Amino acid sequence: EITALAQNFFNDSQPQPLQGKKIMITAGPTREAIDPVRYLSNHSSGKMGYAIAHAAQALGANVTLVSGPVSLSTPDKVKRVDVNSAEDMLNAVMSDIDHQDIFIGCAAVADYKVEQVATDKIKKSAEHMQLRLARNPDILATVASLDNKPFTVGFAAETSNVIEYAQGKLERKNLDMIAANDVAIQGQGFNADNNALHVLWSGGQHNLPTATKTELARQLLQLIIERMDNDENSN
Amino acid sequence: EITALAQNFFNDSQPQPLQGKKIMITAGPTREAIDPVRYLSNHSSGKMGYAIAHAAQALGANVTLVSGPVSLSTPDKVKRVDVNSAEDMLNAVMSDIDHQDIFIGCAAVADYKVEQVATDKIKKSAEHMQLRLARNPDILATVASLDNKPFTVGFAAETSNVIEYAQGKLERKNLDMIAANDVAIQGQGFNADNNALHVLWSGGQHNLPTATKTELARQLLQLIIERMDNDENSN
Repeated sequence: EITALAQNFFNDSQPQPLQGKKIMITAGPTREAIDPVRYLSNHSSGKMGYAIAHAAQALGANVTLVSGPVSLSTPDKVKRVDVNSAEDMLNAVMSDIDHQDIFIGCAAVADYKVEQVATDKIKKSAEHMQLRLARNPDILATVASLDNKPFTVGFAAETSNVIEYAQGKLERKNLDMIAANDVAIQGQGFNADNNALHVLWSGGQHNLPTATKTELARQLLQLIIERMDNDENSN
Repeated sequence: EITALAQNFFNDSQPQPLQGKKIMITAGPTREAIDPVRYLSNHSSGKMGYAIAHAAQALGANVTLVSGPVSLSTPDKVKRVDVNSAEDMLNAVMSDIDHQDIFIGCAAVADYKVEQVATDKIKKSAEHMQLRLARNPDILATVASLDNKPFTVGFAAETSNVIEYAQGKLERKNLDMIAANDVAIQGQGFNADNNALHVLWSGGQHNLPTATKTELARQLLQLIIERMDNDENSN
């Protein structure tokens, strides 16, 4: 009863435009094993993805967060699934993608895995070593190619020609929206608490200037809600 | 008895066998850049090295902690120097090694770095990729080869033939002591709070069975103090 009252109170005080919507968000890096002690990875604190999960929950959504290894605590009322490799992440995503209304791929997924993972620690001996890598599955493109796909949002962390590359990725992967950020700029992206995003979709774009990741998460979700309303109205 | 131990531990009159001694400890993983977003690394939470730093400070030592990227807070009154790559770590160690009485190499230093680090993010395109790696400097062996070297302690995290390999490393690198642990055993090593160590030195060994890393840190320092006393007495 108290819970009901509290829910009512919060419902009344904050609009819940994502009430009844299911959102899946990937966050953090993946780790690709070389042997039991070594791995390949990507810089990613997971802060942006976790901020989106938190903001989506506050806007009324039912949130699933598929997370690589990060040092962040799970936002309240968010279902978190922990994974390591890109293949683990793909499996976790695909096992529950059918019921999602929105998919936001915020994880820094390793593009390549090690072709032959050693079961014992490799001893160093040679002065040089070759590591043979093979392409990882593309989680974002896999989701975006589904019949009945959710509204699919990607991220592009780039160090040069950021918008050009993001536009290409939007089209090539059949995404509904992409958020690009220039990780070469000090103080944004990766481990920073601030970020700036340039958001693109088919036929439009919007610049979200430097702000906290918490604030950017809300603004990005607002853009998603607008685009989804627009798509519904045009159908 | 537990109360007595606790009182002893928190007492100001706790014995300070490392009073006036300088200890340098390396901890955590290193990260070797592939490009601005990707890197090679090793599993290491840094917990063992941080526990040793904490315990050494409590025993009266002046502690310098050279740390790779970890999510741990710096123990009280410990000087912490943050580094990323193995080369960074070597530079930080060598810049202050002359005045150290004890060096404990607890970091999981990457054995190999990427031969050619790309300044821009590498675009994935090919199905396969070759990563050419070159040997990193060996920090532990470099310290142990110094004239007037500190009492030098290494760690060996292995997945098979643990003691054999540790014995070889002790001799090959001219270490004063080595602490071996089997990271293939569940619940110890890496990210765990517990560990078990098999400690070897020239002419002796001691088994430290499963305990918290805090407890093992104290026991390891006790062994180091005994060996140093022994060396002094035999001179």
